[in-house]
Amino acid sequence: MEATVCYTPIGVIRSSHTDPEKTPIQPVFAKGCKGRVEIFEAFAEGLQDIEGFSHLYLLYHLHRAGPAKLKVKPYMQDSVRGVFATRAPVRPNPLGLSVVELVRRDGNILYLDGVDILDGTPLLDIKPYTAKFDRFETTRNGWQDEVDEETARKRGLRGYEKEGAP
Amino acid sequence: MEATVCYTPIGVIRSSHTDPEKTPIQPVFAKGCKGRVEIFEAFAEGLQDIEGFSHLYLLYHLHRAGPAKLKVKPYMQDSVRGVFATRAPVRPNPLGLSVVELVRRDGNILYLDGVDILDGTPLLDIKPYTAKFDRFETTRNGWQDEVDEETARKRGLRGYEKEGAP
Repeated sequence: MEATVCYTPIGVIRSSHTDPEKTPIQPVFAKGCKGRVEIFEAFAEGLQDIEGFSHLYLLYHLHRAGPAKLKVKPYMQDSVRGVFATRAPVRPNPLGLSVVELVRRDGNILYLDGVDILDGTPLLDIKPYTAKFDRFETTRNGWQDEVDEETARKRGLRGYEKEGAP
Repeated sequence: MEATVCYTPIGVIRSSHTDPEKTPIQPVFAKGCKGRVEIFEAFAEGLQDIEGFSHLYLLYHLHRAGPAKLKVKPYMQDSVRGVFATRAPVRPNPLGLSVVELVRRDGNILYLDGVDILDGTPLLDIKPYTAKFDRFETTRNGWQDEVDEETARKRGLRGYEKEGAP
């Protein structure tokens, strides 16, 4: 049961984010951040019909995450939380998840908007995001309900805005 | 870049689904399907504050997926699609993703609703799902827009309904 599972990247994520400290922490704060996915040729056939979707899940390896921690201070707040109640990258399994907008596809290249992902990140999987299956009505949003809009925006953008972001 | 990445499960998913052919294909079709996550003791500390969230992302290893295919027929439709435009389990990297409802937490056990996951599935990560970050306005839902509601419901439930599901 506790056996290790291993995956091989299907492609690489390209973006203008090279400094973790200046990378927006969520796609909602990364509107206007263009990027792209370059799928390796061996997997390109699996992209058929993907251009029909406006939004995609990207699942990727957080290749520059530091050592795992079980307790973290989220970027949004100065309280210590369990890592699984946050999106901090220092997770036991550094798996990243983002919903990005698919602008267009050119062969094995997907052009994206809303990219909150570091340049050079290894991509593990892509899944379609759909209105029917992926929009859930939450009733509790945990500690995030304690964070006001302005703090969220400011901390969510991190250093990005200072660089002249839109 | 193409180096393999390896992960170690943080826990196991328990559900009443033991037959892949009778497992609902999405949480929206699994309403009423109870299940639980058992987090291994070594990672239990990372659950702090998670009970504040009504919905969670589970990222898991599709341990019973067959060999990878790049072209598949989705359960919902009889047309061949690229695997990345579907949620079929036979992916190059068999990573599963579900949004489930967190009913309650008892120590290292999370009691869930809306579980579309096979019993015994190795869990890799948990992330909070929030209204602020995870509800996107899609403009195109690809081939899924071609599937009518009744077909979606019927095929989405798969064999599950026959077993006396709610």
